[in-house]
Amino acid sequence: MWAPPLERRTPVSGAFLADTRLSEFASQCIIIHMTIRIAVAGASGYAGGELLRLLLAHPDVEIGALTAGGNAGSRLGEHQPHLLPLADRVLAETTAAALDGHDVVFLALPHGHSAAIAAELAPGTLVVDCGADHRLTDPADWDRWYGGEHAGHWPYGLPELPGARDILRSATRVAVPGCYPTVSTLALAPAVQHGLVEPEVVVVAVSGTSGAGKSLKPHLLGSEVMGSLRAYGVGGAHRHTPEITQNLSVVAGKRVAVSFTPVLAPLPRGILATCGARLTGSDDPRSVYEKAYADEPFVHLLPEGQWPTTAAVLGSNAVQLQVTVDADLGRLVVVAAVDNLTKGTAGAAVQSMNIALGLPETAGLSTVGVAP
Amino acid sequence: MWAPPLERRTPVSGAFLADTRLSEFASQCIIIHMTIRIAVAGASGYAGGELLRLLLAHPDVEIGALTAGGNAGSRLGEHQPHLLPLADRVLAETTAAALDGHDVVFLALPHGHSAAIAAELAPGTLVVDCGADHRLTDPADWDRWYGGEHAGHWPYGLPELPGARDILRSATRVAVPGCYPTVSTLALAPAVQHGLVEPEVVVVAVSGTSGAGKSLKPHLLGSEVMGSLRAYGVGGAHRHTPEITQNLSVVAGKRVAVSFTPVLAPLPRGILATCGARLTGSDDPRSVYEKAYADEPFVHLLPEGQWPTTAAVLGSNAVQLQVTVDADLGRLVVVAAVDNLTKGTAGAAVQSMNIALGLPETAGLSTVGVAP
Amino acid sequence: MWAPPLERRTPVSGAFLADTRLSEFASQCIIIHMTIRIAVAGASGYAGGELLRLLLAHPDVEIGALTAGGNAGSRLGEHQPHLLPLADRVLAETTAAALDGHDVVFLALPHGHSAAIAAELAPGTLVVDCGADHRLTDPADWDRWYGGEHAGHWPYGLPELPGARDILRSATRVAVPGCYPTVSTLALAPAVQHGLVEPEVVVVAVSGTSGAGKSLKPHLLGSEVMGSLRAYGVGGAHRHTPEITQNLSVVAGKRVAVSFTPVLAPLPRGILATCGARLTGSDDPRSVYEKAYADEPFVHLLPEGQWPTTAAVLGSNAVQLQVTVDADLGRLVVVAAVDNLTKGTAGAAVQSMNIALGLPETAGLSTVGVAP
Amino acid sequence: MWAPPLERRTPVSGAFLADTRLSEFASQCIIIHMTIRIAVAGASGYAGGELLRLLLAHPDVEIGALTAGGNAGSRLGEHQPHLLPLADRVLAETTAAALDGHDVVFLALPHGHSAAIAAELAPGTLVVDCGADHRLTDPADWDRWYGGEHAGHWPYGLPELPGARDILRSATRVAVPGCYPTVSTLALAPAVQHGLVEPEVVVVAVSGTSGAGKSLKPHLLGSEVMGSLRAYGVGGAHRHTPEITQNLSVVAGKRVAVSFTPVLAPLPRGILATCGARLTGSDDPRSVYEKAYADEPFVHLLPEGQWPTTAAVLGSNAVQLQVTVDADLGRLVVVAAVDNLTKGTAGAAVQSMNIALGLPETAGLSTVGVAP
Repeated sequence: MWAPPLERRTPVSGAFLADTRLSEFASQCIIIHMTIRIAVAGASGYAGGELLRLLLAHPDVEIGALTAGGNAGSRLGEHQPHLLPLADRVLAETTAAALDGHDVVFLALPHGHSAAIAAELAPGTLVVDCGADHRLTDPADWDRWYGGEHAGHWPYGLPELPGARDILRSATRVAVPGCYPTVSTLALAPAVQHGLVEPEVVVVAVSGTSGAGKSLKPHLLGSEVMGSLRAYGVGGAHRHTPEITQNLSVVAGKRVAVSFTPVLAPLPRGILATCGARLTGSDDPRSVYEKAYADEPFVHLLPEGQWPTTAAVLGSNAVQLQVTVDADLGRLVVVAAVDNLTKGTAGAAVQSMNIALGLPETAGLSTVGVAP
Repeated sequence: MWAPPLERRTPVSGAFLADTRLSEFASQCIIIHMTIRIAVAGASGYAGGELLRLLLAHPDVEIGALTAGGNAGSRLGEHQPHLLPLADRVLAETTAAALDGHDVVFLALPHGHSAAIAAELAPGTLVVDCGADHRLTDPADWDRWYGGEHAGHWPYGLPELPGARDILRSATRVAVPGCYPTVSTLALAPAVQHGLVEPEVVVVAVSGTSGAGKSLKPHLLGSEVMGSLRAYGVGGAHRHTPEITQNLSVVAGKRVAVSFTPVLAPLPRGILATCGARLTGSDDPRSVYEKAYADEPFVHLLPEGQWPTTAAVLGSNAVQLQVTVDADLGRLVVVAAVDNLTKGTAGAAVQSMNIALGLPETAGLSTVGVAP
Repeated sequence: MWAPPLERRTPVSGAFLADTRLSEFASQCIIIHMTIRIAVAGASGYAGGELLRLLLAHPDVEIGALTAGGNAGSRLGEHQPHLLPLADRVLAETTAAALDGHDVVFLALPHGHSAAIAAELAPGTLVVDCGADHRLTDPADWDRWYGGEHAGHWPYGLPELPGARDILRSATRVAVPGCYPTVSTLALAPAVQHGLVEPEVVVVAVSGTSGAGKSLKPHLLGSEVMGSLRAYGVGGAHRHTPEITQNLSVVAGKRVAVSFTPVLAPLPRGILATCGARLTGSDDPRSVYEKAYADEPFVHLLPEGQWPTTAAVLGSNAVQLQVTVDADLGRLVVVAAVDNLTKGTAGAAVQSMNIALGLPETAGLSTVGVAP
Repeated sequence: MWAPPLERRTPVSGAFLADTRLSEFASQCIIIHMTIRIAVAGASGYAGGELLRLLLAHPDVEIGALTAGGNAGSRLGEHQPHLLPLADRVLAETTAAALDGHDVVFLALPHGHSAAIAAELAPGTLVVDCGADHRLTDPADWDRWYGGEHAGHWPYGLPELPGARDILRSATRVAVPGCYPTVSTLALAPAVQHGLVEPEVVVVAVSGTSGAGKSLKPHLLGSEVMGSLRAYGVGGAHRHTPEITQNLSVVAGKRVAVSFTPVLAPLPRGILATCGARLTGSDDPRSVYEKAYADEPFVHLLPEGQWPTTAAVLGSNAVQLQVTVDADLGRLVVVAAVDNLTKGTAGAAVQSMNIALGLPETAGLSTVGVAP
């Protein structure tokens, strides 16, 4: 049984403290606190590192096993020098044995490795998969975009989608959304759900390089990335296209066609998505978006005239949105900014864990970015 | 046996020499060469600096007056430390008197200043305006997007447009296109000209910061720009929207609707434009683009599978293009990369000058970028 | 009277929770918590923004008045879009009246403005000055490097210096060190204190651009900064030279000569200082540094062979150090990394506040960086 | 009346033409020009790419064989998309057979591969080695810093060193200096040659990432490099230390001790070196440097008060210098900027070739940088 006051310990809640301080303090004296033991598989990668950065700030978590593939046997500090409190932890080999015996296991593994590991873990263990294996519902999509046999579909860790929280509340398995699908879906869901736009949307998302992970490819070298912009996976060739299509189609209740182009830009973190579609009528999109996200702790529609920047969400779990109408063309344009490693990956994983365990949804998560 | 004058004229054109060597060498033996005296107004800004960088490498040009506004009286080296051969030149006040008496005057001034200066220059002087004043044909567009009285329309310095070279050949006034319109127009012109796509196009163009000039605005500070992405002028609010619309509509012979969104990214130079539109039929866009640009010295359709990067065109006058079809959506997607200061501004100005003066079009211009 | 257990609520302490949980929980039931009301003058600048980012995560703080100069009257969100919980706060004019009535007032003002404001505040108010006004002890130094009358010397907010904590514990006024002096002093203090090196040191410190603040100067524009490196204040001309000299001379008990050169590099945050001096003997510097910083929560000597990076301390209050000996030259070389806005400014301010108020020194501060 | 062959030979040398025009024009009229056939081994790497970028602009060169190791068999355009005129060239395997039959062979190979290849080439072939194999004169240094048997010493391609041009004029083998040694040596040579400083110098050189080549190492990934600074090879551990020591000791006529620390910064190109030493007397260093470099086409002492930036020399063969005296310490401080790939590698190779072949030293080289 979990201690609400502990939620007050999270940095993000600093702003909400005043009104709740007394009740909080009173309740603190009568509850017993239990710590959640977590493990992270793939702790030497970018997603794993961001999970640990967030979990170190989580009031209810104790960090257990850290595992890796090729880096097993080395100190975490060699790979994640920014995680000082864990620098001397030695990485274990990624095996079910090493991960077993924890309340929560986060998987930050290459595609295709999650199902086998999860199958060996105790049924009661909450398994949160940051990989793609369990995101797609249609095995045909999996086969076309990733190839091979589909591992099956898990509850989808995008709580802001209609009905998602109910499913996550009872979940012991969670599929964390991809970074592009997260920002694209949140940018367009209210519009397609309320039929504001025709079911054909165009998304061009500019991303930092950490989304590609630590893979040693020439085009990811600093010398290649800095001072350059490159598009890739153009013409619907990127694996996140079917995931965005799936999300928006579910929300719309009908097939939504998605033209998606990712662009690689010279920054480590952040995605800025420009999303457009033809308006069906003259409804005011702004009021629809205001209603849709009024109660969401992490999705913020900016005041009119202010546009999102990725720097403003760096390291935070917030999504910043702005909507406008191109009157000449009768098109809706939504711009959204997210940190691909936080709300785009690790933050969504922690947010989903909080819901699944009945913790306050914002525990250990912040809406404050690190800027400049 | 080898022709010194020739290979020496334009090192950059090495690639195109072979076929023309003999005839040109012959001509060398009978012509007397006159050097062209040029002046640059706005020499301390980014466009002015790039003009001078290119003109220093131009075989037929002698650099005359350099003028500025607030920086008049100071050494060029204080503002353009990369232009060593001109470092000790002192900037004159921007006046018609200072600019008169040159064969060519390049204007790199804030919007609204070109017409008055040009009116005072000798009629025979070739005036090349890098500003927006003379780009738009419709006074109503000028009034809506820039405000005030329209200075009139000059021959448009985008030689790759159908018929443009004929107009430029006899021109004494040239309006250099905007950087976004250059890359967007070249990316979509063949498609709209041949009716491959419906007359509604979506352009999202990611740009480096030099396009904004040296203006001292907080959002252009290095601390704000680095590590961040920001959209601006969203929803058709950017002044380049009517220029792109004008270009594509002329090429298509009918109104083309343009949804244009610019995104600011952390690099000094370069624009990567992602351009899409719904296909009208099943023609093969690639062959259309191959034919359209087969003879263009500066527009390069890349081999299938290779995507443009801005680093590959840094400091060069080349445009790199790739086209593909999103079969699921029946959409054409074209990605184009350009250096906003070279082909996007100063290179187009020099290319236009070359045509207007009957010089080889590639004189002083390069298709070789500076990378990494 | 303050509540130690609350310190456990801070993210950074996640790593220290296990052993202290029970005693903490027990103690929690018997104390009364009181919140500290703070004000920030200069809230729209970089130092002010970082102060607020940290204070939002501080368990014992309530954020009161936010003031500014030219930006007074506007929403904080216009200037600090990353501070979502405070976005709608309106900035007041920076006056003593606006700042009065708070337990702590942080001053992040241009040089020369602190003394007058501080004089008008209630004597009991803790005033923490992030500016330079009260750092130098010698009025002659002030006059030479800043000019004008010296405002006097306040307790110096570098707790890691010998004896500093005792002075800070009873302080109602604190002068926060400059960013370069912080990293340079911590890198060299153990060596000069124990006479490991001759009293002439050479420091070359490479810095991100935020140290220059939001000042609108051409050389700070993104287009100028990105892709470039520039030295400035060379030859002992930088105002931080006398501060470093003062610190090291006090620690050494004799005059230490400091050759200091700052270099501006294309990143928003972070300073990497390379510090060298000739060794006096054959003592092992490493063991001296290990002892010197063994109990310091924020200064970390890295394992042999691992070198500091600024990314590893981004947004954290940690300093990462490595020491080595150049045997051929008999020189000590120390490399240190710090975030100029956190431990280099705002983090030191909060750390000093914690000490002055008897709070746990690490309250609201983290040793976890945001990387990559 | 104007001299076509001349102004056309080297646009970049426009600044130096005036005085030599007539005599050169005269010579043009009586000589038959032969084109120099060159080959580049390692054409897919950064040094190879920069060599080709410069050679494409060289008036007297024809580009022959391009070879590679692992990339043999692929199009150059896949690896060097910025070299459009050569995009369709297919890379041959790096063998003596492929490289033979050229007037000049440039070697841009990993250390240890040059000697074997060179031994198989015709004795008359000019071999310019961009690697380290033939830089060091002392086999013991080679064995200590690189290991294994010393390949021997070749004429050193730093023409600005006293006497260097005489040696290069008759050379058929050239060892191109390392990038750090180039900038460090040029920054300090006048001071040590004229005994202005004590023979112990401290160099901290901040570099872009391309100096590390295209090697696929995690710390060179864009995500790691951007937003970070890291020192490496600290304490005299970098292989360029003995080369700098060798250069300065030869110039000084006695052993000069060098404390060298390289720092990796987030930019692709450029090195900024801060170099200091204790002054021996009160001579005016500035006048010594003015004299030393008065006639050098590529080394520029900036006007007092102006400091070098790497952006100003990007893609150019120029070195920008500034000298000052720290009067408090009696130290000389010299700051120098260079492009590590141009003057730091490929530009020096071309400059050395020009001298060895009796071409104008500046042929194909520019003192104009690409900025911003």
